[in-house]
Amino acid sequence: MPELRLIGLIGIPEIRTGDDLAALIVEAAANLQLTFQPHDILVVTQKVVSKMEGRVVALGDIVPSPASLTWGAHLDKDPRLVELILGEAKRIVRMDRGLLLTETRHGFICANAGVDRSNLPDDKSASMLPLDPDGSADAIRNRIRVLCGTDVAILISDTFGRPWREGLTNVAIGVSGLIPLQDYRETADDFDRLLKATRTAIADELAGAAELVMGKTERIPVVLIRGYSCSRGVGRASMLVRPSERDLFR
Amino acid sequence: MPELRLIGLIGIPEIRTGDDLAALIVEAAANLQLTFQPHDILVVTQKVVSKMEGRVVALGDIVPSPASLTWGAHLDKDPRLVELILGEAKRIVRMDRGLLLTETRHGFICANAGVDRSNLPDDKSASMLPLDPDGSADAIRNRIRVLCGTDVAILISDTFGRPWREGLTNVAIGVSGLIPLQDYRETADDFDRLLKATRTAIADELAGAAELVMGKTERIPVVLIRGYSCSRGVGRASMLVRPSERDLFR
Repeated sequence: MPELRLIGLIGIPEIRTGDDLAALIVEAAANLQLTFQPHDILVVTQKVVSKMEGRVVALGDIVPSPASLTWGAHLDKDPRLVELILGEAKRIVRMDRGLLLTETRHGFICANAGVDRSNLPDDKSASMLPLDPDGSADAIRNRIRVLCGTDVAILISDTFGRPWREGLTNVAIGVSGLIPLQDYRETADDFDRLLKATRTAIADELAGAAELVMGKTERIPVVLIRGYSCSRGVGRASMLVRPSERDLFR
Repeated sequence: MPELRLIGLIGIPEIRTGDDLAALIVEAAANLQLTFQPHDILVVTQKVVSKMEGRVVALGDIVPSPASLTWGAHLDKDPRLVELILGEAKRIVRMDRGLLLTETRHGFICANAGVDRSNLPDDKSASMLPLDPDGSADAIRNRIRVLCGTDVAILISDTFGRPWREGLTNVAIGVSGLIPLQDYRETADDFDRLLKATRTAIADELAGAAELVMGKTERIPVVLIRGYSCSRGVGRASMLVRPSERDLFR
């Protein structure tokens, strides 16, 4: 019977700048008696990638501009955080009711340009998204291949909101080694008719599924997904971003 | 180690109006030597629920109004489908570039008010969403409890688009026996600070995860999820719908 397994890689320590995250993942898997297989997918939460890459800043080092002071008061946010968010944002999509919805340098539409204060070891810092999450995914994948000889696919996940639905879900912001969209447009349905206009964002579904195992405290920053057969190849997270000319809500 | 398993219930036959879907699910599970357990979750695709409930119409029986004829030409859609969609919609959110984005009677914002022509046995019909997907989920859950003595949670899933991201994902449109949002707002993070404003739409992540096993042809209309511990209780799909007064994009 078709079965998908999602296994939380417990035992990965708190990550610091410059750590060899891939080696820690390989070690955690080995401690769980898991050997990576060619169709395995690893979902890695953004926060540990940002920590490894030094994308954490001390709020005390930030001097807010007059605009950040004004907007901070208006949005009920620390003006130093607002300053950081504006620096990470390519544009503001909505600024209302305490929400600062932005387009990031990567093209993602998300709250606060991915700037976040949770799960950091001190109360006085904030993390930013990796500068190039696809590149981060490539680096982890290549390093695991060197260490184990196995080419696993990597997704970097983050937690985004949705406009019409309550609650956040995890989506993929970095991709390496799989095509993030499954194209059913040339596939026949059960009754031999072509399925029109159907592409599934499997990378987002995989990232969301992994969140169910990670939970929110991130003591499980990496989840192994086994049993999912998808198109391998050069996938990029930008494939999941709707171009602004086709976007009716930006 | 924490592990989630998703198992596709193969062997469920083509569903017709009035079929005892719950009994067919129980039979399929038994044929796979699976015994339902109290924390199991079953994700059931909307299409088989709609078929069971007779929510399928012959397009030949629909007489399009003048508005549907005009809009059908404008949107390059069969005017009889447009007529059906308008009947299912509470309002139109956007009508542009071939897209008819609607609010359904249930409050869901989705394309075509959930009206869909895929995976139907003839080329001349269309399916609509269940009138009360939570009620449908309740009925399946109650019937399984009668048949097996086990209280499993049920999610009814459908495939929705997102405004800023490419590709569709499965979400929950019907809920019975679990709370669809996991509230982390009173939880401490790894460093004992309260996680603010974080609620995860676990029902949508569960539905999306199940899609990875279902694929799109729907020969696997039901997926068993085992190993996920969530809050049981009276959950409703409406908890996942953002009220229009808090919605910046409707």
